[in-house]
Amino acid sequence: MTKHKVGDRVGVGCMVNSCRECANCLNGDEQYCLKGMVGTYGAEDRDGTITQGGYSTHVVVTEHFVVSIPDGLELDVAAPLLCAGITTYSPLHRWGAGPGKKVAVVGLGGLGHMAVKLAAAMGAEVTVLSQSLKKQEDGLRLGATSYFATSDPGTFEQLAGSFDLIINTVSASIDISAYLQLLTLDGALVNVGAPAEPLPVNAFALIGGRRSFAGSMIGGIPETQEMLNFCAEHGIGADIEVIPAGKINDAYERVLASDVRYRFVIDTATL
Amino acid sequence: MTKHKVGDRVGVGCMVNSCRECANCLNGDEQYCLKGMVGTYGAEDRDGTITQGGYSTHVVVTEHFVVSIPDGLELDVAAPLLCAGITTYSPLHRWGAGPGKKVAVVGLGGLGHMAVKLAAAMGAEVTVLSQSLKKQEDGLRLGATSYFATSDPGTFEQLAGSFDLIINTVSASIDISAYLQLLTLDGALVNVGAPAEPLPVNAFALIGGRRSFAGSMIGGIPETQEMLNFCAEHGIGADIEVIPAGKINDAYERVLASDVRYRFVIDTATL
Repeated sequence: MTKHKVGDRVGVGCMVNSCRECANCLNGDEQYCLKGMVGTYGAEDRDGTITQGGYSTHVVVTEHFVVSIPDGLELDVAAPLLCAGITTYSPLHRWGAGPGKKVAVVGLGGLGHMAVKLAAAMGAEVTVLSQSLKKQEDGLRLGATSYFATSDPGTFEQLAGSFDLIINTVSASIDISAYLQLLTLDGALVNVGAPAEPLPVNAFALIGGRRSFAGSMIGGIPETQEMLNFCAEHGIGADIEVIPAGKINDAYERVLASDVRYRFVIDTATL
Repeated sequence: MTKHKVGDRVGVGCMVNSCRECANCLNGDEQYCLKGMVGTYGAEDRDGTITQGGYSTHVVVTEHFVVSIPDGLELDVAAPLLCAGITTYSPLHRWGAGPGKKVAVVGLGGLGHMAVKLAAAMGAEVTVLSQSLKKQEDGLRLGATSYFATSDPGTFEQLAGSFDLIINTVSASIDISAYLQLLTLDGALVNVGAPAEPLPVNAFALIGGRRSFAGSMIGGIPETQEMLNFCAEHGIGADIEVIPAGKINDAYERVLASDVRYRFVIDTATL
């Protein structure tokens, strides 16, 4: 073992293995391993065993898939960064969120609240597009400078051609063509969730502004480490509610009811 | 007048005016003028007159929208470059077609045949994806190294994850999600035509390879000049059939029947 030593503060995210030989793996895009990455939860690993997920007090993972939690980042607020953090950091970073860029985040849930924090820390001007204004105060506290309700059709008129980048964290079907019209020339709308049903896309909405509709899935291991370092540097963690193991079923119901701000973290000492 | 002088060989493309003051115009993206560009055919110009199109022996156009036809490029084979040429050159160039890149062109018509010539001249490895193998010989002559029939489902299996860039020149509805699966990691499928109906896009096809579905509309004036210079340098013109004015109605019927290889050009001396 060369990457970590006993006693280091470390984390394991959504994947625990990949072929580590294909072009994507060698390029640090293990999540796109051409032979298939191995998910942390109930996936068949390369040796035929089934991965056991995060409801565990111990886990054995090859060091390549173990990242360092930098000092100054508490373990509990760091845990969701390994999924919601990297899932939003990766497209924000790749599509150039930063000073002078206008970024919209669709949906203010576990993913969305991280997207707002990260985009703001990158220096972008952040707008939240949420169904209602219910979480407006939260959105502004997290770093957004504007907050609009998408249930109001006026929002789409007012914001037409506004954003360089839209991160869509909503897994339900939304009217993608309407959101594409909110992009400026060469803007991109990146989905990080995947609705089960295909999304109807009006090609005019793309062609009329040289826009892109794209997708992104978590992030690679080097990028995950980069994200953790970025978060430590900017004092960013997830907003969490720590629960004991006995509350897992309650928490699950509350997740379904969108009653969490913004991620539950299980205290594994209680398992 | 400073850009051209009497006797110069010049051309006018799909647009004849724009505001020339907005960010997009100032950036050479006049086709995306924020106040609306003025099309060459039956559009209302900034002075209220209606543009008269290309069935003319003379046309008055402000010099900014007049491009130079380089020596060595015949006027007849250059004419379609001002539409089909720039429409395909722009996305090929912007999305990085060149040595080491695999480019697929969907549809081998007026736009497609230019996409093949241009992508090959840029040094990319070009594949044509056409409904049938009817025009295979043409495709290979134009510069493609492979040619596949999309009516054969095996094509989609065989080519999965193959292309860095796909230029879709087909304006009919095609199964975009199936074509997206042909892209490699970070690949882009760019539509240059716009079907009337929305295209259903499976978000998994995007997320599963960080892929983009994008659109592009003709090109700006500086880019059109760049394309003409590129064509002159590489000896590229459109494949055309020159017709006298009296054959316009016949030619129109033949276009509808896809019976043209690959563009009709009207000899305006016969008007």
